Amino acid sequence: MFKVALFGVGRIGVLHGRALAAHRAFDLQYIVDPRKEAAEAFAAEVRATAVSADEALSDPQLDAVVIASSTDTHLDLCIAAAAAGKAIWCEKPLDLDLQRLRQNRSALEPARNRLLMGFQRRFDPHFRALRHRLAAGEIGTLESMHVISHDPAPPPVDYIKVSGGLFKDMAIHDFDMARWMLGEPVADVFAMAANLVDPAIGAAGDVDTAKILLRTPSGRVCLISNTRRSGYGYDQRVELYGAKGRLAAGNQHETTVERWGAEGASTDRFENFFLTRYQAAYAAEVDHFADVIAGRAAPLVGLDDAEAALVLAVAADESVASGRPVRL
Amino acid sequence: MFKVALFGVGRIGVLHGRALAAHRAFDLQYIVDPRKEAAEAFAAEVRATAVSADEALSDPQLDAVVIASSTDTHLDLCIAAAAAGKAIWCEKPLDLDLQRLRQNRSALEPARNRLLMGFQRRFDPHFRALRHRLAAGEIGTLESMHVISHDPAPPPVDYIKVSGGLFKDMAIHDFDMARWMLGEPVADVFAMAANLVDPAIGAAGDVDTAKILLRTPSGRVCLISNTRRSGYGYDQRVELYGAKGRLAAGNQHETTVERWGAEGASTDRFENFFLTRYQAAYAAEVDHFADVIAGRAAPLVGLDDAEAALVLAVAADESVASGRPVRL
Amino acid sequence: MFKVALFGVGRIGVLHGRALAAHRAFDLQYIVDPRKEAAEAFAAEVRATAVSADEALSDPQLDAVVIASSTDTHLDLCIAAAAAGKAIWCEKPLDLDLQRLRQNRSALEPARNRLLMGFQRRFDPHFRALRHRLAAGEIGTLESMHVISHDPAPPPVDYIKVSGGLFKDMAIHDFDMARWMLGEPVADVFAMAANLVDPAIGAAGDVDTAKILLRTPSGRVCLISNTRRSGYGYDQRVELYGAKGRLAAGNQHETTVERWGAEGASTDRFENFFLTRYQAAYAAEVDHFADVIAGRAAPLVGLDDAEAALVLAVAADESVASGRPVRL
Amino acid sequence: MFKVALFGVGRIGVLHGRALAAHRAFDLQYIVDPRKEAAEAFAAEVRATAVSADEALSDPQLDAVVIASSTDTHLDLCIAAAAAGKAIWCEKPLDLDLQRLRQNRSALEPARNRLLMGFQRRFDPHFRALRHRLAAGEIGTLESMHVISHDPAPPPVDYIKVSGGLFKDMAIHDFDMARWMLGEPVADVFAMAANLVDPAIGAAGDVDTAKILLRTPSGRVCLISNTRRSGYGYDQRVELYGAKGRLAAGNQHETTVERWGAEGASTDRFENFFLTRYQAAYAAEVDHFADVIAGRAAPLVGLDDAEAALVLAVAADESVASGRPVRL
Repeated sequence: MFKVALFGVGRIGVLHGRALAAHRAFDLQYIVDPRKEAAEAFAAEVRATAVSADEALSDPQLDAVVIASSTDTHLDLCIAAAAAGKAIWCEKPLDLDLQRLRQNRSALEPARNRLLMGFQRRFDPHFRALRHRLAAGEIGTLESMHVISHDPAPPPVDYIKVSGGLFKDMAIHDFDMARWMLGEPVADVFAMAANLVDPAIGAAGDVDTAKILLRTPSGRVCLISNTRRSGYGYDQRVELYGAKGRLAAGNQHETTVERWGAEGASTDRFENFFLTRYQAAYAAEVDHFADVIAGRAAPLVGLDDAEAALVLAVAADESVASGRPVRL
Repeated sequence: MFKVALFGVGRIGVLHGRALAAHRAFDLQYIVDPRKEAAEAFAAEVRATAVSADEALSDPQLDAVVIASSTDTHLDLCIAAAAAGKAIWCEKPLDLDLQRLRQNRSALEPARNRLLMGFQRRFDPHFRALRHRLAAGEIGTLESMHVISHDPAPPPVDYIKVSGGLFKDMAIHDFDMARWMLGEPVADVFAMAANLVDPAIGAAGDVDTAKILLRTPSGRVCLISNTRRSGYGYDQRVELYGAKGRLAAGNQHETTVERWGAEGASTDRFENFFLTRYQAAYAAEVDHFADVIAGRAAPLVGLDDAEAALVLAVAADESVASGRPVRL
Repeated sequence: MFKVALFGVGRIGVLHGRALAAHRAFDLQYIVDPRKEAAEAFAAEVRATAVSADEALSDPQLDAVVIASSTDTHLDLCIAAAAAGKAIWCEKPLDLDLQRLRQNRSALEPARNRLLMGFQRRFDPHFRALRHRLAAGEIGTLESMHVISHDPAPPPVDYIKVSGGLFKDMAIHDFDMARWMLGEPVADVFAMAANLVDPAIGAAGDVDTAKILLRTPSGRVCLISNTRRSGYGYDQRVELYGAKGRLAAGNQHETTVERWGAEGASTDRFENFFLTRYQAAYAAEVDHFADVIAGRAAPLVGLDDAEAALVLAVAADESVASGRPVRL
Repeated sequence: MFKVALFGVGRIGVLHGRALAAHRAFDLQYIVDPRKEAAEAFAAEVRATAVSADEALSDPQLDAVVIASSTDTHLDLCIAAAAAGKAIWCEKPLDLDLQRLRQNRSALEPARNRLLMGFQRRFDPHFRALRHRLAAGEIGTLESMHVISHDPAPPPVDYIKVSGGLFKDMAIHDFDMARWMLGEPVADVFAMAANLVDPAIGAAGDVDTAKILLRTPSGRVCLISNTRRSGYGYDQRVELYGAKGRLAAGNQHETTVERWGAEGASTDRFENFFLTRYQAAYAAEVDHFADVIAGRAAPLVGLDDAEAALVLAVAADESVASGRPVRL
């Protein structure tokens, strides 16, 4: 069993913490959070100990850290954990500042093979099956793709203000998805964006609706469609168009129940909460982290992916600002 | 072009009449209906002449008749048309009285190869494709099947009273469908029926809801599910279960439009009118009748099918009356 | 935490054992299985102790038992556990012999409110939602229903021989489902059955394909369709037809991935393994058992349900034998 | 009945000619095509007379013309027909040269209320229902939309060479669709395009794959996705995203037949031929043209729409050439 420390007991930290506590491969020892009471309450729940970051990282028995603290702490914690020789599972993003990330990459290089970035969609069984079947040649050569990524409802504006904006906060998952499927680096980025959902988001200097086009050197084009508010739950679809057809992963409904009435047929609600939508993905991610620590697997998504997705987000921001495509 | 007379200008007669008038293979010459004004009005619309049955049948140039008059006239008109050497397309049922039908079969035998029974579902492209793919072995040997046949809403009770009852009037189509798919004669019939939809139907001595089981000698079982009122439009599905899987023909919606909202996904309405639902079937049936008259095709559904479906309806009535299965 | 003993470490016993071991409300203490090595191996895995049935039941600290042993031991173990005052979760069936079950009911009566029968489909979120929406009046009064229950592939014939036959072994789940939805007792049972899938099943005296009709006093009819081999995975659907429409729970696919090609659109495989198909149901069942032990809930499915489902299975057997409907 | 002349007996001309010949509101009198034999053969089929364009237009009894001749003749024929006072139904495009079209608009202005442009998708019942439900407010304010428009297979390269290119030939329908739904003029156009399907198309100077973004002043963005080869039939979908949800019109299958097997569920083929896919649209278009001639309706799609769609196609060409968005 690997001894592990959890940084951050917000929503996603609690999710990971409970999974680690129940997992056979892990021994969740430390809980770290500047909010003392929260840290201690959660430590009690999972039978761990609330400590400071230094205390956790200085334990030579500790194998790994899970970083689910606030975004602005991610990079420093990763650097410290890397220096201490710990395996790292860090929630996205690694950092919101591309310059800063690049300046600090050398400090993270030693951890490259033991640093897992929390792009959980790569572990979703639906998207994994999609990727596998694309690679198996089911639709021949990929020619274009669509990533529809519409959230159920916008987050509070206070979150928007510190989020880094639509592209770094939300589309970052979709940039990673696009990179995973495209099989080629992205050469050109163009984005159109607007503030249509909530004027408060615009007042905070952000957009809430966007269409992004990515192009690879061979001419493959990927559309990413984002909105902060779908009005109907999680809409997270990926459509791949190839020489021999189309492969797509669709949305999930809460149950299979269907009603037929005078107005037609209607399904049950769409999944409306990301923790439920990505439940299987999070579980698979924990398993994979155990494999990474054990050296049985290289991280499926890591340092280079974190930087590359951020590069695309920055380019999308630039494209919106200039009104022109950005060549990478 | 074949010269043809139409008997009956009710809803289905008008449908057939317009199709015949627009069809290249037909010259619709005579309209026959005891309701003079209706006959003449429709004759004017399609540029035909309103005449009596005798006048029509005694024209030696007349090739064929289409019988869409009231049920109680079908058998006599068929006999007269057969005697006059005309090709016949007769709406179902040939007759409601099995004894009477059998007593008069000899008079119809000469027309056997030129008598088409109006079980239009055999011409529906969906059910035809289903039958074709079953025959092509896509699911191996057929083991059981379900025919779901739910009407949108019950007809007026005045119609119920002269309809012959649920089995002879409505399930008769499903008996024919079952016979078409089963590939074996039916040996046993069991039915459970009730009056659940409209008390007036019960007061008229009929049922409005039924489940029927048919069994063939080899053990294949077919379920027929009937109700006079689905509450959601035409529900006319056929499901075939074989050694290698399932083949099914489903329902049709008015359009492909779909809405996604907080309550889930919802389709457009189901087709709600049999003339719309079976539009393609009726068109194909007219084409087939031209082939039958020309001698290019034997009737896809004919005299034996009319009798066999009626036998099953009578057996279902007996089963409900006795509470026991009926062996044929 | 409730101290619990597990009887039987076959496939379903291991499933329940692991769930109990990981569950916060349970402390899995004892593993009982006549196959010593298997018992000890599983006890080691879940950090429990392998003991005899007597040892387990004589521990006054033990709160509850989970009975997943071979069918012929269920009733005796339930009686012993009831006598020892333990809460009981017993896999179906309670017994295959209706007479024997009735003779021993008095011994089980004291455990009535603490005896949960393992009809796991009642805990399936899809069927629960269906039941809830029926009860909420979404389709008005229920008029008829269909339970399609087709297994992916037949079990080994050795299992068939001790299974009690198709109705007691497989359709028993569907009888319980029908009872749960119908809202009225069943008055009449009629079944047609055949040996179409595997001649070895017929040689063992059993059938593998059946259609069953159940009727309630008010005239509601339920169809149950069974086959031991669908050819396409688990087909477990429930369709409810009411005065205002239709409600149905459908099948589950392994992923949402869909392919469009020259042959049309195709989904991913259907769920093909009952432990996967009913994963959420089993998890909910464990939670419910904790509530039952704690006295927070009466068993959602219990002693009366076990007997009533067996009554229907016996009637179906009689109907096949006599060729006639059976009145209860 | 309106006397009408048909110009052009290619595939679409023959389709319209047969519909006009069978339609109660029309008397198809003249067939005009420089290929004499083809004109005479079709004239014989529909009982019309093959004449020259001048002969047709100089008949004062002639009410209307249907122009389905080669693209390069459309504008001149429209001008001549307008000068002769005839109602006009002209297949798209009015012309491939925007300058030329603008220079000649004054000659067409007098026919404005009697000139119907053949964007048949506006008459498709599915897209009409979509438009109607958007206008009815079912998803609140439109925020973005996707038009997926993938043809089954590329046309011959000889056609590509005279087609005007992907945007003027194929996307022109999608530009019209976008304009119809957006409810605002398009302000910005950006396109990425490539030659991925067939090198011969690239050798002919054209592209075969494109993603186009259109933006309106209020910030609504429309994606158009085009490929000359889907590999799975007609893929013509429109997805509307609004403040309260999503409305979409989907693809059509040849039948409702579905197969369930070990690999999952599979539908029948997608419609693979535009004349079949848009059969209902073409029929509705003929009806509408009768209403236009009779003065009962203004053209649903006319002169301004022809020019506006061409403006967008030209802008898309410019965007691909410059690599930048084009502001209109």
